[in-house]
Amino acid sequence: MEIESATQHKGACGRLKALPSRFKAKLITVAKSIKKLAQDDPRRIIHSLKVGLALTLVSLLYYVRPLYDGFGVSGMWAVLTVVVVFEFTVGQTLSRGLNRSFATFSACALGIGAKHLASLSGEKGEPIILGILVFLLAAASTFTRFFPKIKARYDYGILIFILTFSMISVSGSRVEDLLEMSYQRLSTILIGGAICIIVSIFVCPNWAGQDLHKLVASNIHKLATYLEEFGGEYYQNCSENEEEGCGGRDVSKNDKSFLQGYKSVLNSKNTEESLANFARWEPAHGRFRLRHPWKQYLKIGALARQCAYKIESLNVYIGTSDTKVSPEFHGTIQEVCMKMSSESGKALKELASAINTMSDDPFSSANAYVESSKTAANELKIALESASLNNVDIQAILPSATVASTLIEIVSCVEKISEAVHELSNLAHFKKIKEANVSPELSKQPHNLLHRGSVIPVLDGDSNHVVITIDHEKTDNWPENDQNPKGPNPAGRRPQV
Amino acid sequence: MEIESATQHKGACGRLKALPSRFKAKLITVAKSIKKLAQDDPRRIIHSLKVGLALTLVSLLYYVRPLYDGFGVSGMWAVLTVVVVFEFTVGQTLSRGLNRSFATFSACALGIGAKHLASLSGEKGEPIILGILVFLLAAASTFTRFFPKIKARYDYGILIFILTFSMISVSGSRVEDLLEMSYQRLSTILIGGAICIIVSIFVCPNWAGQDLHKLVASNIHKLATYLEEFGGEYYQNCSENEEEGCGGRDVSKNDKSFLQGYKSVLNSKNTEESLANFARWEPAHGRFRLRHPWKQYLKIGALARQCAYKIESLNVYIGTSDTKVSPEFHGTIQEVCMKMSSESGKALKELASAINTMSDDPFSSANAYVESSKTAANELKIALESASLNNVDIQAILPSATVASTLIEIVSCVEKISEAVHELSNLAHFKKIKEANVSPELSKQPHNLLHRGSVIPVLDGDSNHVVITIDHEKTDNWPENDQNPKGPNPAGRRPQV
Repeated sequence: MEIESATQHKGACGRLKALPSRFKAKLITVAKSIKKLAQDDPRRIIHSLKVGLALTLVSLLYYVRPLYDGFGVSGMWAVLTVVVVFEFTVGQTLSRGLNRSFATFSACALGIGAKHLASLSGEKGEPIILGILVFLLAAASTFTRFFPKIKARYDYGILIFILTFSMISVSGSRVEDLLEMSYQRLSTILIGGAICIIVSIFVCPNWAGQDLHKLVASNIHKLATYLEEFGGEYYQNCSENEEEGCGGRDVSKNDKSFLQGYKSVLNSKNTEESLANFARWEPAHGRFRLRHPWKQYLKIGALARQCAYKIESLNVYIGTSDTKVSPEFHGTIQEVCMKMSSESGKALKELASAINTMSDDPFSSANAYVESSKTAANELKIALESASLNNVDIQAILPSATVASTLIEIVSCVEKISEAVHELSNLAHFKKIKEANVSPELSKQPHNLLHRGSVIPVLDGDSNHVVITIDHEKTDNWPENDQNPKGPNPAGRRPQV
Repeated sequence: MEIESATQHKGACGRLKALPSRFKAKLITVAKSIKKLAQDDPRRIIHSLKVGLALTLVSLLYYVRPLYDGFGVSGMWAVLTVVVVFEFTVGQTLSRGLNRSFATFSACALGIGAKHLASLSGEKGEPIILGILVFLLAAASTFTRFFPKIKARYDYGILIFILTFSMISVSGSRVEDLLEMSYQRLSTILIGGAICIIVSIFVCPNWAGQDLHKLVASNIHKLATYLEEFGGEYYQNCSENEEEGCGGRDVSKNDKSFLQGYKSVLNSKNTEESLANFARWEPAHGRFRLRHPWKQYLKIGALARQCAYKIESLNVYIGTSDTKVSPEFHGTIQEVCMKMSSESGKALKELASAINTMSDDPFSSANAYVESSKTAANELKIALESASLNNVDIQAILPSATVASTLIEIVSCVEKISEAVHELSNLAHFKKIKEANVSPELSKQPHNLLHRGSVIPVLDGDSNHVVITIDHEKTDNWPENDQNPKGPNPAGRRPQV
């Protein structure tokens, strides 16, 4: 017994001693994750400070005597409005602020009307009629929130409408100065909303439209990176391990980021849709006009997802299949498959660059790459027709054949993306740069410089903003000899990194 | 000029006359969409009525004299709480109610502490210190909302924390009876929250956990329906149009719902995650205990999406490819491919039925189907090895080969889903039914009856609930002769539809 209790005592002591070090470790983990959150997107820190600023500004209402005398306790509605309305992007803040203001106004008007109507039926009937009105209006308004279109744009407004109507009509049965109350509520909400909108727009604004624009471009860029690297990686492994086949276990074990980057594209639908929804509320900013074709981004996003599904099946297939590959057949199609993959990758990179720079300039080379990938797909068909494989083991050609046919699908998908980006260029009036007397080969060089590094947005769960970090690693590998001082495009001058 | 103005006049008149009929048409459209919304999920109407009920209940606070005398104007916090906290599912309502209560309590305590601290520094220093405190706390709390885990569970709580802290500490500089104010705010919020939670749980509750459970089962069911129908449809078209090949234009033009059902699985990630998140807040209900393994549903959901990506590539491939198919090769693999597809479909249907009924019973047949589909995959490999195709046109076998290899991938994916559902069965303690002396063939019959019809959930954009409708069409085709009165399972008795 004594030994046991001694052991227990020792254990307890150990635990006590271990506690501070564990606590320290926990603290370090938290600090690291805070640092990572801030580094992933420094706008998060700025947003936090902006919320603090807006809240401190609205608190002034309480310290400026004339304002306090005007509003009194109602001043808290302004504080409440700032906390509830201030969101990460300008569009979301505007959407909530305008929804809240209009809903409060209409609910106040309707509430006073309802109160007047109820007062006609005497003191006993009043609460009953008001109760019935509140019930009916709340039930009807709640039901309208199920309409997908209304939910996307006016959900918050309807919530505030129910809230204000109930508060006005219910409290109206006690407080006599309803008009005064409505006026105070509305004006304090307008003050709070105005502070939010002003701080949101004029202090380091985060535009939802810009986020959507960058997200779509970077999603295409991710697909491009995968496709550009895929051919080299897959077929290189094949030729290195010919006796093993290129079932791709080597590829899947190489934990290269280009194999994972496209995965975030698969689940980008909700983020894109909510960003497009908020972008519609935003005023003209930068090169985005008031009626910028946000819907077109959703179309491009959907096509990019289609392409990502194909890459997913390609990737999973390579990762899991371990069938031995026929080197003979493989050799026949290797070159043309690599070409298909890399040319469509290059085309997508040019398209991403066209979106990023909002310029028609990269289109000429994008079109050339699309054409080149289509030519490669046709070459593949010819190669397959002319391939004289007698006594072929179909099982041995199955993996290569599947990869080839998936690549053919990807080529046609890239063509569709290209068409959609061209359409966007027309709708959004991309910069048109005259390219007379410039050969496609020359025009390719300059804008390649525009998309140095890779854009890696971090999708943040179900939050409605996107983190976009620029990865400058690749600039180290930049071909220093590729200088083209006579480039036709001033954007072609190499930035001094 | 006269003619022109006459035409204009006529046009204006026409527009005026057209207005009522257009208005009528618009009205009919709206009425139809309301009817559709209600029919898709009658729980929407019940939810709307529940909100009305909760709001009417809380309004009573104003009409019951002793309560009004206790709370006065603060009673509006109860109204506000009901409107803001009441959500579609019990889990979401609980999450918001508890978040709001705890956040208000801690913010009140901290706010009074801050007020006391600030009051020590004299009348002039007080507003400055309070302003700094509000700024720091608001900025720090806003930043914590970016942590994905905190965002998922406590986002609303942090919002209310900032709100209450600012209101208490700012208004505290004027209103002296802070404790009284805090007490009133907290108690009215508790009353409002309690009314919400009680109405939500005891009046036709919508459990997020149950929704997640049904959603995952129905997603698997959708994949199953596709796979079961696919083989017959694709190869039937091939044999009917042998001279045309089975590029599948026929399949894609047939606007059959089974070809589209799986599409909603592709984008189900966000809905599943938020439902799982709300389900964690819910108390034990029905067969779901307090610590039900909700995470396992997310795992099964992710595997189902993997499978859906493969089906997507299969489906798009069939829809777009128009290469002519070699009937010789096609004939070699047709039967075994159809078997792979239909057996994996049947396996998935049994697994969906196992989840739906929360019973181990369908596992025996699910396992049999999985084994059978794996055998078919092996048979395919053997068929491919033994196929003596001399002077083969590889281009002609490419479509069939790709379909075959995609089906092989689907078989292995179905096996993974099966393992995950077995794991769920262990974790969630599914009903175990003794099957001694029952042959697999016999045991298959009864639970086939359990999943008559098909479950068609409607994903509702970014809303956090799922509409699940039961399609009874198929019950008409139910084989009336398959009666098995000696079935070992009482659930096997045919319901009197």
